[in-house]
Amino acid sequence: MAAPSEPEVIRDKAAMRAWSRRRRAEGKTVAFVPTMGFLHEGHLSLVSTAAAACAGPAAIVVSIYVNPSQFAPTEDLATYPSDFAGDLRKLAATGVVAAVFSPPDLYFRGSARRPADASGNGAISCLDEAGGDGHETWIRVEQLEKGLCGSSRPVFFRGVATVVAKLFNIVEPDIAVFGKKDYQQWRIICRMVRDLDFAIEIIGSEIVREADGLAMSSRNVHLSCGERQKALSISRSLANAKTAALSGNNHSQQIKDQIVQALTEAGGRVDYVEIVEQESLVPVERIDRPSVICVAAWFGKVRLIDNIEIQVPS
Amino acid sequence: MAAPSEPEVIRDKAAMRAWSRRRRAEGKTVAFVPTMGFLHEGHLSLVSTAAAACAGPAAIVVSIYVNPSQFAPTEDLATYPSDFAGDLRKLAATGVVAAVFSPPDLYFRGSARRPADASGNGAISCLDEAGGDGHETWIRVEQLEKGLCGSSRPVFFRGVATVVAKLFNIVEPDIAVFGKKDYQQWRIICRMVRDLDFAIEIIGSEIVREADGLAMSSRNVHLSCGERQKALSISRSLANAKTAALSGNNHSQQIKDQIVQALTEAGGRVDYVEIVEQESLVPVERIDRPSVICVAAWFGKVRLIDNIEIQVPS
Repeated sequence: MAAPSEPEVIRDKAAMRAWSRRRRAEGKTVAFVPTMGFLHEGHLSLVSTAAAACAGPAAIVVSIYVNPSQFAPTEDLATYPSDFAGDLRKLAATGVVAAVFSPPDLYFRGSARRPADASGNGAISCLDEAGGDGHETWIRVEQLEKGLCGSSRPVFFRGVATVVAKLFNIVEPDIAVFGKKDYQQWRIICRMVRDLDFAIEIIGSEIVREADGLAMSSRNVHLSCGERQKALSISRSLANAKTAALSGNNHSQQIKDQIVQALTEAGGRVDYVEIVEQESLVPVERIDRPSVICVAAWFGKVRLIDNIEIQVPS
Repeated sequence: MAAPSEPEVIRDKAAMRAWSRRRRAEGKTVAFVPTMGFLHEGHLSLVSTAAAACAGPAAIVVSIYVNPSQFAPTEDLATYPSDFAGDLRKLAATGVVAAVFSPPDLYFRGSARRPADASGNGAISCLDEAGGDGHETWIRVEQLEKGLCGSSRPVFFRGVATVVAKLFNIVEPDIAVFGKKDYQQWRIICRMVRDLDFAIEIIGSEIVREADGLAMSSRNVHLSCGERQKALSISRSLANAKTAALSGNNHSQQIKDQIVQALTEAGGRVDYVEIVEQESLVPVERIDRPSVICVAAWFGKVRLIDNIEIQVPS
């Protein structure tokens, strides 16, 4: 086995774009995996998916950037875990990552102040949005961003779509890989790419789970041992629901009630349990078409999300 | 003089992008002039600006596309003038335009219907936005889009920013030229490009006027002879205001009052007269920094806009 190659660390936007254009000029496919760091096996599987998706010579770029504009001030930006040195080691060990893009900041910050009542559309994030000449351009995918995580996290998808567009314009990839664990995010990015004509193929990568079934997440590190055990109710109830649906018990309300009950009995606080069409994310009354069951629930101070796709044989 | 070269007409998004990438691979600068057609000297000056902006070999692309999403249903999409054959002749005569991008449609149209109350943010344009799987991604430059034309045309800049981003992703230019006649539009595009990290240099091109001073516009064709004479009050009052400001009469309110009076006496119906900072478009009380006077007024059924920049010696 060859020694793992060290990825090149790039901090500057212009340097990143120049790097990418050189690789493409060499005939390589530029494949991009955006992350917020604190990498786990789930992220590394995105890298594997990216590598597998490139037919010929590839240049794989992983970005590590905790995006302030997708966090509300009440959310966990300040405590979001990070371990840059560890991340680099893990990416080097894959042997396929050519560059890590880790910018200090991606936004233009305002110098002048703007009157408080002039801020946009009532949405407030951890990006300072009161600077008069600061960042003020936002991308919204207006239907898909509603419901599911959008209900309890009103600035989240605005921040995600906007930062992903910025990263796309900086990295200029041919392919980008997103995890299906963030199911709504993945669908929103697919729609944004279609609607805005980005020349990028978006690939959804399957959820990676711990041996006991818990979906991998950077936030799992905040779970106590007991909370961690209780949180297994999410993946278990999703798996049970899928089995039930495939055997004909396909009434959404009934299935949702059972999942809510299972999570609550385990000590979780349910944010939502929804069963929706896979592409439109519109709720379905029966699982009689390609659907996905999406769950968000709190265990202790940690909000976890998970989902399971169900392809009904037609 | 060499015979004018015929521009290549491209209708398809993928063909346009492939064309552009080939030209860049040949070492050419791809310069882009987006238009809605019915070309006049103003547009042709944008082409000249584009040609002059390219240091080395250039590939100039002009798009002709009347964008439905920037028109409200009450506006003049249906009567917006067009003359594709004439446009092609004029572009060919410049001898520098290599391609004309003229797509039949740029948007994904929905097949399924969506409940009426689920439409986004109350904004309704001439794009059918009720299709459940249709276009739903919008870019807003939230501060700059307020005021001036944004007040009376609530969907306009949302549509402009979004279609320009789409065109940028399809044409992938190095340089793009916008007319300063649409002053707010130009500033919004500059801000969008900065905020979303498009790798495109935006150039503002000076207003081109008829011999009598009327700013050139595709909509001028709808003016009657009498309206046309009355509309000269716009450029005259702007020129007078600039002279006054540079000679020390720099109170915005006073200047605005004089312009409103001149337009009204000429028989125009004023939409707005505003004096704002050039970059932020924030109103100024005195013209004591780089400012621009912006006017929109109706003459008959035609809404005209015009502006004049004032650089105050510091």
